[in-house]
Amino acid sequence: MTHEIAVIPGDGIGQEVTPAAVEVLETLAIDFEFVEADAGDAVKEETGEALPQETYDLAASADATLFGAAGETAADVILPLRTAVDSFVNVRPAKAYPGIDAVRPETDLIFLRENTEGVYAGHEDRLTRDVSTLTRVVTESASERLAEFACDYVAGDDHDGFSIVHKANVMRETDGLFRDTVKSVADENGVETDQVLMDAFATRVCLDPEQFDVVVCPNLAGDVLSDLAAGLVGGLGLLPSANIGPDRALFEPVHGTAPDIAGQGVANPAATIISAAMLLEYLGYDEESDAVHEAVEDTLENGPRTPDLGGDASTEDVTEAIGERL
Amino acid sequence: MTHEIAVIPGDGIGQEVTPAAVEVLETLAIDFEFVEADAGDAVKEETGEALPQETYDLAASADATLFGAAGETAADVILPLRTAVDSFVNVRPAKAYPGIDAVRPETDLIFLRENTEGVYAGHEDRLTRDVSTLTRVVTESASERLAEFACDYVAGDDHDGFSIVHKANVMRETDGLFRDTVKSVADENGVETDQVLMDAFATRVCLDPEQFDVVVCPNLAGDVLSDLAAGLVGGLGLLPSANIGPDRALFEPVHGTAPDIAGQGVANPAATIISAAMLLEYLGYDEESDAVHEAVEDTLENGPRTPDLGGDASTEDVTEAIGERL
Ligand SMILES: CC(C)[C@H](C(=O)O)[C@@H](O)C(=O)O
Ligand SMILES: CC(C)[C@H](C(=O)O)[C@@H](O)C(=O)O
Repeated sequence: MTHEIAVIPGDGIGQEVTPAAVEVLETLAIDFEFVEADAGDAVKEETGEALPQETYDLAASADATLFGAAGETAADVILPLRTAVDSFVNVRPAKAYPGIDAVRPETDLIFLRENTEGVYAGHEDRLTRDVSTLTRVVTESASERLAEFACDYVAGDDHDGFSIVHKANVMRETDGLFRDTVKSVADENGVETDQVLMDAFATRVCLDPEQFDVVVCPNLAGDVLSDLAAGLVGGLGLLPSANIGPDRALFEPVHGTAPDIAGQGVANPAATIISAAMLLEYLGYDEESDAVHEAVEDTLENGPRTPDLGGDASTEDVTEAIGERL
Repeated sequence: MTHEIAVIPGDGIGQEVTPAAVEVLETLAIDFEFVEADAGDAVKEETGEALPQETYDLAASADATLFGAAGETAADVILPLRTAVDSFVNVRPAKAYPGIDAVRPETDLIFLRENTEGVYAGHEDRLTRDVSTLTRVVTESASERLAEFACDYVAGDDHDGFSIVHKANVMRETDGLFRDTVKSVADENGVETDQVLMDAFATRVCLDPEQFDVVVCPNLAGDVLSDLAAGLVGGLGLLPSANIGPDRALFEPVHGTAPDIAGQGVANPAATIISAAMLLEYLGYDEESDAVHEAVEDTLENGPRTPDLGGDASTEDVTEAIGERL
């Protein structure tokens, strides 16, 4: 069976790390058909559109999409692409790796971020010169879908349960609906949960990240708290993510375009290659996925390393080293 | 001139740390009249109301209020009390102290949090069984008032400028209005600013807190990011805060009621006493304020210390030690 994979490198180091991940996928004995498409600042400059219709359509029909990064136009690219794959959950692991400098080396968290609504539902108005509003939307159905995914996730990956992060003491109706819905789905499935206020989570995860494991949260909370966890593990450089929909999915490193080093061939491809490992798992290639994870971890620990990790290897050196370990 | 100070101990360790701060204020040669009032879980149990009208009225008329903590009813108490003093900014210093264990000992930040609107404006609806909404409100006038305060603050306290934290790439109209208004007030006042996305701030402050100093942000961002900074300095235990309005203000430790240790006489009074030092500064007693800050810092560094900091002193021992250093 052939899998069509949309490849959208985007801007900056996206142009370097995305081909690196494709190179790794190509070393595997899987029948992939890679189809490349444009998105981001550069194509906007040329055509006026950050996300051309063909690119959107490709992501909406391919089995999976691998996305690199976009610059100024990031929100105009990634938010519609998440919609293109009908993604209802953003899976964001934040894990420290042996040998990599981290504020909290014991961090090993999985964020399951609601990916369709909250403040991202995005109805805004300028009511008067003085007053602007945004309508934050929380639905029972989206909360349920996320919770069902979370229950499957913890069962499949052998976790004890999950934490529900919310701010229902202030957003009583909306985050109350989120919290109660997620909790009741978990209860029905016999999955243990605890509930943590989003501000308390921010304090507690710094003090002791090991008290948390799988974290289920609304969209913006997931955005900010997963980036906080990124800080604890040493930065965005190594973090992958998966935007999962019912029939397709989109994988992307959490980092951006890194304009300061773009074009020099020294970008760290690890986050994108780990994202590709998540893609493999999504398509059912668990063994291959594990092998890629292990090859990346081995390379992070023993080198070669790119300059961001104190080494002097190139993107290509690291990519080859990972390929050789497969 | 007599200053009327409302004292609202609230629940849990609020009952222990608030009298401790009053005790410190009483050692100073200032004419204070302390008037105590109830709020929180205990009074709700008794009377059905977490915030009795007399307590609200007292805070709304006193020159300043010292608040301890409230339990389950925290939001029902603190949000109306902020309104009672017409507080438009919540000043939250997050600073690591010498000799106190901290994830990031170099942290020294001041959050200036918008204190009236954002998601806290609180218009929520359950539109259908499935759909709930919250209207997030951002006004030019509140953003301007905050920005003017921030400009005075950095000038008076000798800072280079401030960072504007926002999520205007997603909340384009509302956080766009916030960001642009704050920036233009700063420009008019010749105050330097930089702009940081709220998620990027979360990563960057963990990696290197020294790159930030004064941080101006919307209400919920301030809530979460100041609690994140609390994590970096070793917990909520030592953090004070000031809710400033045009004519009066309310001071409170950032910590909660600590039910696990309440009633044992071992709660750390430092955060409330530092909040009292902020009250002194607010009323114009700069020298006395500095003296209290120094006495607390000296005591934190050289003891005696309460059990949360590894010591075995009581609340009263620490309070007396601070008083003796004045
Ligand atoms: C670029 C931006 C719209 C996006 C988000 O807020 O989701 C980014 O921060 C992310 O987390 O992928
Ligand atoms: C208790 C709660 C309503 C409050 C807030 O969200 O502002 C608290 O977290 C704080 O930061 O003082």
